[in-house]
Amino acid sequence: MMGYMSITRAGCAALDAADPISDFRDEFVLPDGIVYLLGNSLGALPRRTAARVAHAVTAEWGQDLGASWNTAGWWDLPQTTGDRIAPLIGAGPGEVLAGDSTSVTIFKALAAALALRPGRPVIVSDVENFPSDQYVVQGAAQAFDREIREIGPDADLANALGPDVAVVLLSHVNYRTGAVRNMAEVTALVQASGALMIWDLCHSTGALPVDITGADFALGCTYKYLNGGPGAPAYIYVAPRHQKAARNVISGWHGHASPFDFEPGYEPAPGVRRFAVGSPPVLSYAALNASLEIWEKVDMRSVRAKSVALTELFIELTEHLGLELATPRDPVERGSQVSYRHPDGYPVMRALIDMGVHGDFRAPDLIRFGFAPLYLRYVDVYDAANTLAEVLSKELWREPRYQRRLTVT
Amino acid sequence: MMGYMSITRAGCAALDAADPISDFRDEFVLPDGIVYLLGNSLGALPRRTAARVAHAVTAEWGQDLGASWNTAGWWDLPQTTGDRIAPLIGAGPGEVLAGDSTSVTIFKALAAALALRPGRPVIVSDVENFPSDQYVVQGAAQAFDREIREIGPDADLANALGPDVAVVLLSHVNYRTGAVRNMAEVTALVQASGALMIWDLCHSTGALPVDITGADFALGCTYKYLNGGPGAPAYIYVAPRHQKAARNVISGWHGHASPFDFEPGYEPAPGVRRFAVGSPPVLSYAALNASLEIWEKVDMRSVRAKSVALTELFIELTEHLGLELATPRDPVERGSQVSYRHPDGYPVMRALIDMGVHGDFRAPDLIRFGFAPLYLRYVDVYDAANTLAEVLSKELWREPRYQRRLTVT
Repeated sequence: MMGYMSITRAGCAALDAADPISDFRDEFVLPDGIVYLLGNSLGALPRRTAARVAHAVTAEWGQDLGASWNTAGWWDLPQTTGDRIAPLIGAGPGEVLAGDSTSVTIFKALAAALALRPGRPVIVSDVENFPSDQYVVQGAAQAFDREIREIGPDADLANALGPDVAVVLLSHVNYRTGAVRNMAEVTALVQASGALMIWDLCHSTGALPVDITGADFALGCTYKYLNGGPGAPAYIYVAPRHQKAARNVISGWHGHASPFDFEPGYEPAPGVRRFAVGSPPVLSYAALNASLEIWEKVDMRSVRAKSVALTELFIELTEHLGLELATPRDPVERGSQVSYRHPDGYPVMRALIDMGVHGDFRAPDLIRFGFAPLYLRYVDVYDAANTLAEVLSKELWREPRYQRRLTVT
Repeated sequence: MMGYMSITRAGCAALDAADPISDFRDEFVLPDGIVYLLGNSLGALPRRTAARVAHAVTAEWGQDLGASWNTAGWWDLPQTTGDRIAPLIGAGPGEVLAGDSTSVTIFKALAAALALRPGRPVIVSDVENFPSDQYVVQGAAQAFDREIREIGPDADLANALGPDVAVVLLSHVNYRTGAVRNMAEVTALVQASGALMIWDLCHSTGALPVDITGADFALGCTYKYLNGGPGAPAYIYVAPRHQKAARNVISGWHGHASPFDFEPGYEPAPGVRRFAVGSPPVLSYAALNASLEIWEKVDMRSVRAKSVALTELFIELTEHLGLELATPRDPVERGSQVSYRHPDGYPVMRALIDMGVHGDFRAPDLIRFGFAPLYLRYVDVYDAANTLAEVLSKELWREPRYQRRLTVT
C-alpha cells in the first residue's frame, strides 16, 4: 500500500519518454501552468482547429457563400462527420449521423425506439444517467404517454425488464464514477426481453474502445474526449436492421429523401440520414472535423492502454490520502476518469484549480478527474496527485475564498 | 410602362450616394465580381466575424477552456443572444431564446402549443410554408395524434378555423413569392377562434420590421438577413403570458431551473429559458453575435425603406421582360425579395449565376432574388436587372451546360 512512495517524477518522465502515443500531445493547445483534467468535460483545443475554422469562415462562407453547400460539402456534413466518428464506436459507414445537441439526440433516439415498440409502456433508465438523459426521458414519457422505471447503478437490471419494457437507456461509462457497464452483456439481456437498447456513449467515445455492434441505438457527444469544441454536434447510431423502420419524430427537411424537390409530404431519406433535422451549424462542424482528422490516426487500443496506466497511476499516488474512491478500483471496470468522495469536495476542487489542477466537482461530494490520453503526460498525473496531497494535508481548502459557490459546469 | 428606360446606372449611383444606410456595406465581405442576391438564403459574412470566431476558438476555448462557460458567458448564450434578436421582431427581454436548428425549433413550438390546447385535434398549416415546416408538422401530428388541415396562400383562413383547431402555423413572408401576411390581423383572427398562433419569421427577420406583440409563439432563423453564418442557431419567441404554462417537450438540462444541482427530476426554468435543450454550439454563436453587434446599430425602418426601393427598382427594370411576377406588385404586400416564374427557370438561373448574378431557383419554375438592404447597392440592382435582360433577350440559358441539374440549396 505504500508503493506510491517509490514512484518518482523522474520515473514518470521515463514513462512519458517510452509512451507510444506521446506525440499526439503536440497536436493540442494546452495553457501554460495547469494540469488539465477536464478532457472528460471539454476536450482541449487541437492546434489545427483555428485554421480550419478560419477557412470555413473566410473562404467557404465569405467567398463561396451558398455554393459551399455543395462545393465544401456542407450539406453532407452530418453524414461525412458521422462516418468519421463511426470507427471510434465500432460502427460502419452509414450507421452514424452527426447533428443537434446530445439532449435533442436522446429525444430523437427515444422517440424512434418507442415507436418501434408500440405495445410496451415502460422506459427503463438509470438514476445515475447524466441528468439531461433523465430529464429528456421524463419529457418523452409525458409526451408519448409512457412510464419510467428507474434503476440504480447496482440494481439487477434483469428484474427491471419484462414484456412491458419498450426501451432501456443506459450510459456506457457513468459520468460521476467512471464505472463501465459491460455493453455486450447488457445489450443481450435487454434484447432477450424484447426491449430495445439505447447506449449513451458521452463518456466513452474517444476514451476507450467501444464495440456498438448489436445495440439498437446509441448516441454521444463530441466535445469531451473527441475535442470537437464547446457544444460541438452530437451523433446518433442506428443499427442497420432498424434503419428502414425507424422514424425521426423531428422530421425536418435535412432528413427528407429528396429535400430539393420540395415535395409537400415528408418521405424519410434511406438510412441514418433520416435522423438529420435542420441546417447544420457549419462552423462548429469545421472545428469537429479538424479534430477528427487527428482521431483518424489514433489506435484506440493504445489510448485505452495509456488511459488505464494514467488512472492507475493517479489512484496509486492518491489512495493513501484517506479519500473514498468512487471509481472502480479494477481498471477493467472504469473509464478514463477517477472520482473521489470528500464531504468538502467543492472547496477542495476550488483550491486544486487555484493551484493549477483543473478537475471538477459534482454534487454532493464528488471531485472528478478526467484523463485524456492524447495530451496528458505521466508527469502531469504525478504533479496533480502531489497537489491534491498538499491541498488535503495542509487543509488549504479551508480558506474562506474557496467556500463561495460559483456556477460550475 | 417604359419608365425603365429612363433609369440609368448613374441615376442608381446617385441613389447610393444619398442612401442613409449605405455605410453598412463596409461591414460585409462581398466577393468581387458578383451581385449577391441570396441574402435571403445565406447572409453575407460580416467583416468582424472572423476575429470574433477566432477569439472564441483560441482564447475562450483554447486558453480558458471550461471556465468560459462562466467567464465568456457560454452558458447564457441562448438567452443573451435571444435578447439581442428580440428588438428585431418587436419583442422584449426574456421573450426570445436562441438555440437549435429552425426545424427543431418548429417542433418545440408546435409541441408546446398543442399541449396548451389539449382538446383540439387540428393543426392548420399553409401548403406554402417552407417544406421543413410542413414536414415537421406531419411528424408532430403523427407523434401527438393530431390532424393537419392545410390551407393555400389564397385560402380563406377563417373557413379553416373552428373549435377543433389547436394551433395555426404560418409564415410571415412566403419563402417562394415574398408575399407578406398581415400579422396582427391573422393573429387576432386565429386567437378569436381559440387557437394559438405560431409565426415562422425566417424570411422577415432582418428584412422588414416585425411586431410580434400578440402572437403566441414565433421562430426564425438567423443565417439569412441576420448574417449569423451557415446553420447559425435559430430562435424561439414565447409570449410572456404562456411562459409559465408552456412546456418544452425536449426537456434537456439547459432548460432546467437549477441545472447544476443535478436533481433527478426535471423542473423547467422560469421564462423562455426552459426552451433551451443541450449545450450551445459556441463557435456558431460567436459568429451570430458578431453580426448582431451590427444589427444593434440598424434602424429597421431605414432597412424597410431601402428594401422597398430596391425591390421596386428591380421590378421596374425587369417587368417588361415578359416574365410572370410571382411577388406582389404592391410593396406593402411583399418582403425583401422578388420572384419570377419562367418555365425554364433552372437554366435561366444557372446562366445568371455564370454571369455573376447570384439568385436561386425553386421548383418548379421560380427564379428568386433576395435583396439584403445592408449591403446591396442600387447599382447592383441595376446590373442584375441588365444581366437578366441579356440572359433572356439573347436566350443564353439555352446553352446545354446550363440544363444539367446540380444540387441547389
